[in-house]
Amino acid sequence: MKVSNRVWNIEASPMRKLNPIVRELIQQGIKVYQLNIGQPDIKTPNAFLNAIQDFSDEIISYTPSEGIPELIKSIQNYYKMYNIHFNEDEILVTNGGSEALLYAFMGVCDIGDQVLIPEPFYSNYNTFAKLAGAEIVAIPTKIEDDFALPSFEKLDALINKKVKAILLTHPGNPTGKVYNQEEMQRIAKLALKHDLFIIADEVYREFVYDGISYNSFASREEIKDRVIIIDSVSKRYSACGARIGCISSKNKQLMKQLLKVCQSRLSVPILEQIGATALFSTPKEYFYEIIEIYRKRRDIVYQSLKQMEGVICGKPQGAFYIIAKLPIDDCDAFAKWMLEKFRINNETLLLAPAKSFYSTQGMGNDEMRIAYILEEESLKRAMYILQEALKKYPGRKY
Amino acid sequence: MKVSNRVWNIEASPMRKLNPIVRELIQQGIKVYQLNIGQPDIKTPNAFLNAIQDFSDEIISYTPSEGIPELIKSIQNYYKMYNIHFNEDEILVTNGGSEALLYAFMGVCDIGDQVLIPEPFYSNYNTFAKLAGAEIVAIPTKIEDDFALPSFEKLDALINKKVKAILLTHPGNPTGKVYNQEEMQRIAKLALKHDLFIIADEVYREFVYDGISYNSFASREEIKDRVIIIDSVSKRYSACGARIGCISSKNKQLMKQLLKVCQSRLSVPILEQIGATALFSTPKEYFYEIIEIYRKRRDIVYQSLKQMEGVICGKPQGAFYIIAKLPIDDCDAFAKWMLEKFRINNETLLLAPAKSFYSTQGMGNDEMRIAYILEEESLKRAMYILQEALKKYPGRKY
Repeated sequence: MKVSNRVWNIEASPMRKLNPIVRELIQQGIKVYQLNIGQPDIKTPNAFLNAIQDFSDEIISYTPSEGIPELIKSIQNYYKMYNIHFNEDEILVTNGGSEALLYAFMGVCDIGDQVLIPEPFYSNYNTFAKLAGAEIVAIPTKIEDDFALPSFEKLDALINKKVKAILLTHPGNPTGKVYNQEEMQRIAKLALKHDLFIIADEVYREFVYDGISYNSFASREEIKDRVIIIDSVSKRYSACGARIGCISSKNKQLMKQLLKVCQSRLSVPILEQIGATALFSTPKEYFYEIIEIYRKRRDIVYQSLKQMEGVICGKPQGAFYIIAKLPIDDCDAFAKWMLEKFRINNETLLLAPAKSFYSTQGMGNDEMRIAYILEEESLKRAMYILQEALKKYPGRKY
Repeated sequence: MKVSNRVWNIEASPMRKLNPIVRELIQQGIKVYQLNIGQPDIKTPNAFLNAIQDFSDEIISYTPSEGIPELIKSIQNYYKMYNIHFNEDEILVTNGGSEALLYAFMGVCDIGDQVLIPEPFYSNYNTFAKLAGAEIVAIPTKIEDDFALPSFEKLDALINKKVKAILLTHPGNPTGKVYNQEEMQRIAKLALKHDLFIIADEVYREFVYDGISYNSFASREEIKDRVIIIDSVSKRYSACGARIGCISSKNKQLMKQLLKVCQSRLSVPILEQIGATALFSTPKEYFYEIIEIYRKRRDIVYQSLKQMEGVICGKPQGAFYIIAKLPIDDCDAFAKWMLEKFRINNETLLLAPAKSFYSTQGMGNDEMRIAYILEEESLKRAMYILQEALKKYPGRKY
């Protein structure tokens, strides 16, 4: 009686595996600046709870497997703000972006099939791939190049018969990378040449800074039948705990098959669907203030990192993460050391070791992901703690 | 660009595939008695919405991947009523029993591994198996024997190296079968002999009639490290739309690995977890009245079927389903014919074709599953419609 190799081989979440230590520290009265996880501190719009307030069904019944019609309508209208047009039957509501991603892997991959993903990438992609029996092939990108995509030739060389899709996070987690038109065109060309799906995880769509123009993969006419969009209310409306997401595609065949998958899990929770219906109707103006908040935070973190000796990082254009290359031996050891050994006035810091965002062995050992999801004073303090920790860390390389 | 064979090969939900026709009929003003799906008409306890009423978090945040501590505690206490003891870290909260089942398949099976299941079985098991790349091997049981388990020797003959687990629904859906102590012992012996997991889907635990004693697979000492219990609030508290379930096991290794799977989808919706915490604290007495309601309904359906010429069925001991063998050529054709052609005073009937509850080709063609989830008068009327439909159906065999 053995558990499967499939689950055995899943790596523990790099963002969550240190949580037990953190809980202990907090109990001991130690303050931990937790920049390891993308849990925003922004208030969820009141519309969410307000919408649920009126709910009074006597029987909490199954809802349609594809999502309640009101929510699908609301998502359609949300997309229209970005000039993206999906029909009702081109949207399936899911248990967060997570389920949408798992279904995307399952929908395009049979056992042993491959998906190309620029690395570093959101580490849970590894888990979804393993659960689906699929393989991730990393597209190498580097912090020194601001995570720019490789040339078409280099991308082309990665293709073999097993590759079924390219998955991109846009804007990127953990990189903050926003793909420019030329890079998107390169991806489109590759997908067309090799008949691939493009899975675009665009859950950070709104979080783009410095007036950079953002384009969804769903806006490109030439690839519209092969694009699969992943979305979620989690980051967009700071509603991570609601677990409402969706998978949208104009590929009728895919959506027809995935509807059967949705039917197997019957439906998505009713209350959060009602709340999310209100969230997706939030006017675009709501984001102006939020984006400004994150932009300022990014600047604090970026400027602080730039001033630290031996630290390399680019200026992220989107999302709320930054990858920093540090003068350290091992990111896991450094993260643990900060929690267990390093204090300034009873305060310490938790960052996400970036090793797990790479699938290529040996990459990211000296990198950390910082989520700038606390208010400015806390971020300043956290960056000061990082700076001092780097000075004292016994595993400092140079 | 092709969708995967995996999703392509999934059969559309037999319970849901006729829904589009039903929606059309209802719009035309035709009354359809929908006994095709296990959506109870019992009021959800007020405790569910009451518990959520007080919720006022300003930020809808991620909750622990394993479930909120209050809910886990509440589930622990619920199990204690049945003399089942699970520690906190032996329970993982899931998105309904559905996710718990998918995780069970993924946790015990690698690609090509097999799970034994007595057939007829809940048809979504097929989908979970396909998504996990696992295979179902049917344990044949027959309506004429009240779906009794085969002898130990016959069970033993089904085992090969690929079999990793036996999955049982107890009480059974679609059969209403409740396993007796001797049958449970047989399963235990088989699992011990071949070192198998036992996945016990016990979501209908409370719905047992005629004073028959019910025993959970979790109560058997000799197999406690190999039992995986699947549970849900859906049927138990008539809260299908909340989508809260759990997977529980004393197998530490399994739970440790499945926690990583749970972490990949971050968490389960917060509001429904709060509501479910209240539901799992419902006193045992609550069920007395509910069980009596279902018992009476079962009797109506069973007695009516017994009186119909050419119909074979046993008296189900649990859950709220009954399988009936009808004198028809094909259950799919009959279900469709009733919807499209048969009316009595503008009323018709929808049952679930039982073919999809069998994985053995050719089985169940002349069987239907009836969910007795409407009040008595409707059930009587529905049974009258069935009786008359059987007289008129052009595909009647004898």
